[in-house]
Amino acid sequence: MTAFTPKDPNFERKVRENFDLQPFMAEIGAAVRRVAPGEVEIELPVRTQLTQQHGFLHAGVLATILDNACGYAAFSLMPAEAEVLAVELKLNLLAPATGDAVVAIGTVLRPGRTLTACRGDAFAVTDGERRHVAAMQATMMCLLERPGVQS
Amino acid sequence: MTAFTPKDPNFERKVRENFDLQPFMAEIGAAVRRVAPGEVEIELPVRTQLTQQHGFLHAGVLATILDNACGYAAFSLMPAEAEVLAVELKLNLLAPATGDAVVAIGTVLRPGRTLTACRGDAFAVTDGERRHVAAMQATMMCLLERPGVQS
Amino acid sequence: MTAFTPKDPNFERKVRENFDLQPFMAEIGAAVRRVAPGEVEIELPVRTQLTQQHGFLHAGVLATILDNACGYAAFSLMPAEAEVLAVELKLNLLAPATGDAVVAIGTVLRPGRTLTACRGDAFAVTDGERRHVAAMQATMMCLLERPGVQS
Amino acid sequence: MTAFTPKDPNFERKVRENFDLQPFMAEIGAAVRRVAPGEVEIELPVRTQLTQQHGFLHAGVLATILDNACGYAAFSLMPAEAEVLAVELKLNLLAPATGDAVVAIGTVLRPGRTLTACRGDAFAVTDGERRHVAAMQATMMCLLERPGVQS
Repeated sequence: MTAFTPKDPNFERKVRENFDLQPFMAEIGAAVRRVAPGEVEIELPVRTQLTQQHGFLHAGVLATILDNACGYAAFSLMPAEAEVLAVELKLNLLAPATGDAVVAIGTVLRPGRTLTACRGDAFAVTDGERRHVAAMQATMMCLLERPGVQS
Repeated sequence: MTAFTPKDPNFERKVRENFDLQPFMAEIGAAVRRVAPGEVEIELPVRTQLTQQHGFLHAGVLATILDNACGYAAFSLMPAEAEVLAVELKLNLLAPATGDAVVAIGTVLRPGRTLTACRGDAFAVTDGERRHVAAMQATMMCLLERPGVQS
Repeated sequence: MTAFTPKDPNFERKVRENFDLQPFMAEIGAAVRRVAPGEVEIELPVRTQLTQQHGFLHAGVLATILDNACGYAAFSLMPAEAEVLAVELKLNLLAPATGDAVVAIGTVLRPGRTLTACRGDAFAVTDGERRHVAAMQATMMCLLERPGVQS
Repeated sequence: MTAFTPKDPNFERKVRENFDLQPFMAEIGAAVRRVAPGEVEIELPVRTQLTQQHGFLHAGVLATILDNACGYAAFSLMPAEAEVLAVELKLNLLAPATGDAVVAIGTVLRPGRTLTACRGDAFAVTDGERRHVAAMQATMMCLLERPGVQS
């Protein structure tokens, strides 16, 4: 809704470099697709190894990429020296996630000094067509000068 | 709190066989540790490949095993011919998840004909000592005669 | 995002009549402002009796009107003979809710046969200007032929 | 699970005095029943004015007293000079809330310097018998030296 002004002009590089530090995102094969101030898009090709018993993408995988899309959307608006940590997340599963890939888009609702509220939406992509499969609402925390990363 | 009576006497075998159908649980290395009526415990050894940028277990991995612990806790009380599907889940991250392994315990709050509300708790285990690292509250759905698995 | 087609052509009258059956909405002074297929707006004048210890509108009051905005958004798309019941709701408080009135807008994300996922947004209105104060994500249930209203 | 040590020895008086500052709690007729370190119980007599269209206690009323039970459970462990504010809350409705009264019990899961995670459970009481009707999971924030109460 609102246009946000990032505190760190290198917000995109910061997001992409931080993402690359996450072994689990490489493990599942996720990639950052787009970084804007307060909005981040992550893409994940669907593979059998990421599915549950009905052949759908596992809810935990959707939670993973939506958590990251929201977390990096929040992170894009934080000061250069900040770290980001998820406080809590809420996921509604709207439809079976099947297709070629899944795209997760995280958006900042309101950036606060300490806490940033976000929403995320995941879309399954089949032959270029998008279907809304999951919705998230989450809280991210900005950590400054806390090497131990305690909330 | 309450003792539940399972509708399917083979509930434990049903849970374990269904779990084994999930490629993603094998992918991350999770295993069913204990199955009781309305309560299921899942264990996951911590590996670098499952971590995020601070070296903690990824929130999405915690979401994955808690979702399954809750889902199978609900499934253990469903009729033999039912399928289970997650409707929604909510995860609070309480402390950094580090250690040798993480254990997720899912418990049924109230089993309904269609919907079952559950809670889940994840504990990081280091040298045999447990630390509470995440808490879930979730809704699971019982599907009968719905091959297409639509909610 | 999507335009929804209501199953009941009298959806607006149905929503308004059902709303009028709720003693608690009269008690707090809430009113239905707008009813569209899959979207409902509720308005509530702010009064001291509805506030908490800092003089802000109580979080429970925001939960109340957002729950109703979401519930009636879902109800507007249900068959004529259906009843609606909230399964679960999640509320993020974004900013202190103060002002002349609060407006809650509920929107359907995906209408299902049994379950409908919704989002809601509450705005505090001061001198005609809107400020985003709370965000909801919720699940509503369609009840058919269940006089006892069990889930 | 754990026994908590309150930072403020006058925690009970602090909770009760703060509760009495809330106009909305008086409006609905809620009262603090019990205050222990990290656990608070609130009771509310059921009245027609607090119900929805099926004659059940309104979900928003359950959200209100559970939010307060959780908030004051967190507040009981905070320093004497702190203020408490709800960040987010999640409510699952387990069964229709009818009866003579409803009791909400809030419990701290983990108290943090800034954020405290809580769970809450609401029970409908009829002729002295308790029935579990709602479950909450929520995040509360400790505010120090912030007269403007911004998160």
